[in-house]
Amino acid sequence: MTSYMHIGEDIDKDAFVICDYRVTTNLPMDKAANSIAAEQSTGTWTDLTTTTEKIIDLYGARVLNIDKDMVRIAYPADDFSIDIGGVPQILSIIAGNLFGLESIHKLRLEDVSFPKCIMDMFKGPKFGVSGLRKELDRPDKPLVGTIVKPKIGLPPKETAEYVYESGAGGLTNSKDDETLVNQKFCPIEDRTVAVAEALDRLKSEGHSMMHAINVSTNGDKILELAEKVQSWGAKELMVDVITCGFAAVQALAEDPSIKVPIHVHRTMHGALTRDPLHGIAMLPVTKLVRMCGGDALHIGTLGVGKMSGNSVHDMQNLTWCLNDMNGFRTMMPVCSGGVYPGMIGKMVEISGMDVQIQAGGGVAGHPGGVRKGAMAMCQAVDAAYEGIEAQTYAETHPELKAALSKWGLK
Amino acid sequence: MTSYMHIGEDIDKDAFVICDYRVTTNLPMDKAANSIAAEQSTGTWTDLTTTTEKIIDLYGARVLNIDKDMVRIAYPADDFSIDIGGVPQILSIIAGNLFGLESIHKLRLEDVSFPKCIMDMFKGPKFGVSGLRKELDRPDKPLVGTIVKPKIGLPPKETAEYVYESGAGGLTNSKDDETLVNQKFCPIEDRTVAVAEALDRLKSEGHSMMHAINVSTNGDKILELAEKVQSWGAKELMVDVITCGFAAVQALAEDPSIKVPIHVHRTMHGALTRDPLHGIAMLPVTKLVRMCGGDALHIGTLGVGKMSGNSVHDMQNLTWCLNDMNGFRTMMPVCSGGVYPGMIGKMVEISGMDVQIQAGGGVAGHPGGVRKGAMAMCQAVDAAYEGIEAQTYAETHPELKAALSKWGLK
Repeated sequence: MTSYMHIGEDIDKDAFVICDYRVTTNLPMDKAANSIAAEQSTGTWTDLTTTTEKIIDLYGARVLNIDKDMVRIAYPADDFSIDIGGVPQILSIIAGNLFGLESIHKLRLEDVSFPKCIMDMFKGPKFGVSGLRKELDRPDKPLVGTIVKPKIGLPPKETAEYVYESGAGGLTNSKDDETLVNQKFCPIEDRTVAVAEALDRLKSEGHSMMHAINVSTNGDKILELAEKVQSWGAKELMVDVITCGFAAVQALAEDPSIKVPIHVHRTMHGALTRDPLHGIAMLPVTKLVRMCGGDALHIGTLGVGKMSGNSVHDMQNLTWCLNDMNGFRTMMPVCSGGVYPGMIGKMVEISGMDVQIQAGGGVAGHPGGVRKGAMAMCQAVDAAYEGIEAQTYAETHPELKAALSKWGLK
Repeated sequence: MTSYMHIGEDIDKDAFVICDYRVTTNLPMDKAANSIAAEQSTGTWTDLTTTTEKIIDLYGARVLNIDKDMVRIAYPADDFSIDIGGVPQILSIIAGNLFGLESIHKLRLEDVSFPKCIMDMFKGPKFGVSGLRKELDRPDKPLVGTIVKPKIGLPPKETAEYVYESGAGGLTNSKDDETLVNQKFCPIEDRTVAVAEALDRLKSEGHSMMHAINVSTNGDKILELAEKVQSWGAKELMVDVITCGFAAVQALAEDPSIKVPIHVHRTMHGALTRDPLHGIAMLPVTKLVRMCGGDALHIGTLGVGKMSGNSVHDMQNLTWCLNDMNGFRTMMPVCSGGVYPGMIGKMVEISGMDVQIQAGGGVAGHPGGVRKGAMAMCQAVDAAYEGIEAQTYAETHPELKAALSKWGLK
């Protein structure tokens, strides 16, 4: 078998895509690493009469390091086809057949680093953290949002009422849930128009708020739909990136006709990210979403909430929303999933102020209804912003008090 | 918590999408099932002030059955938004947030059944098994194909030579590998033109053959690319369905400008399908690809080969390529991944004749080169077709004999 081992080689980081894989196998780790490098570049399970040393030298992947169950593999930038191929072709190399190799029982793509020549082919967020803050006239505090609940079933008028009430309670953001698109009970045009009217009313009352309309649909149709939705008055769009694909985010972010921010939901990610030994970690997803131009991305709840999560991984995701990345604008990290007011203090302590905190049930489940639920969320955020304990703040804020007594305090 | 339990209810199968999930949890199974049904339809982790009994009655999912670790859940057809939303919206319901619920440790979507009203919104394959057989003038025998190897690195001329040699050896099909699209060393236009010339030459010599050009790219660009590739002479297209999305297959299959079959690769599926307790089984993928119009789909190697696999699951996939499904054309099942001549007898015994058997290394790794590798593959298929043992057949067929002596016999 051809050797792809280049342990310890000092490669030019501008000429390779570098991936870290966690590998579970009964093979010796160097054999496993070699077979991944072969399968994902110029080799296969048997030696070939049709390859040459020159091909392997130019395009073969390189095993750079093995440390316990972690394998680092570098793919030459020339293996990639970004102009035609996009993120699907990137995934076919860094996260393709290797998950199914018979002799490797489990494999997880933990991280990926792209060279400048590849990152330069992407544009990053059009709005990002600063753009969202400017649109919402909210320079410092965390954004506070809701997901309209129930996730399906409300007609347009009730949806718009929900949005109005949550804005009247002080929320800066709301959004459709991930399964709502254009069902009969809530056609997307009627919903967009009704919500736009609610937002205009809030604006006229002095409150800036955004609502992300879910345009998740087939990749060849999403731009046309987004243009329509924008023309009906939407001020933000939502895309389910795992089910629609990264290209859907990129298409909306890069098309000059789309002039509103893109909120990126990650439903179905758990099928890929949940197993700590198999699949794809969220970190590569976060990096790709930012490259593709997502303005806000769900990153988890930093270890709390209804969705499973790992606070270390969630923090990595948050870091890669906000760090220096090829000059791209920063992307707003969204903490969402089982959030309620009593966990916000702890969350903001971890996240800092550049975060969008979002609750569906934690607003619509408030005993006083949506407006009071929204007020409780905002009070919890204000308390965190001012460094006051939620319980202390609740003494003078009855909506927060009611939320704490229903759901408790983390 | 609202109850979504409808155990034993005799529902109208034309009005629901029915899913079977394998659930690993410490919760009592009825609680786990209820929380899945809630999360994926009208509920969330807490009771809501904004929902009504009518909404839950109309749009709530229903837990129909619990049998050990298997849970059957029915989603009302009205929860779906196919016209705008497509497969992404289907996935957001049947395979969305449920993978990340904190209290459910693992969850696997094993199967899905769609009602006629949803299947009717799809068109199925344009060519399928009978269309491919007609184009290739191959009425009865299994199709025999190759993947050009090495998967990246060959320039257009060498790629076309490989295709010509494999056709001269008798193969009916060849294709680009999943990571090849439009790299500098092999621009897609030059490759398509060169391969088309090779296929024309074979045709003039009396042999019909197809080569699938990989058009895997961003969903908003794939139709434009496919049209160009077709205009350069491609007679078949390939799409990586997991990385490009189901919509990419559907866009090509349903657009009247595309007049060639679509070969569907499934790279990255192992990230979803490998864990027997988590993710998404291949069966729902197979059903969705057929609905979207794939003409041929990789289904595994029926328990043998370099890719991990489960012969029972592979057989289910094969069945759902070929069975009666809403009047759709049948879809050619493709056995690919570590295939070599010595395993074909066993494979065809299981698959029957409606199958495309495909080898990359098992052709290009033949000691006599590509043409002899192709001959060996065809001889193994002919032996299987005629019901002769490969070893017996090899006595009068030296190319097969060389393959058996290199790689052995299953």
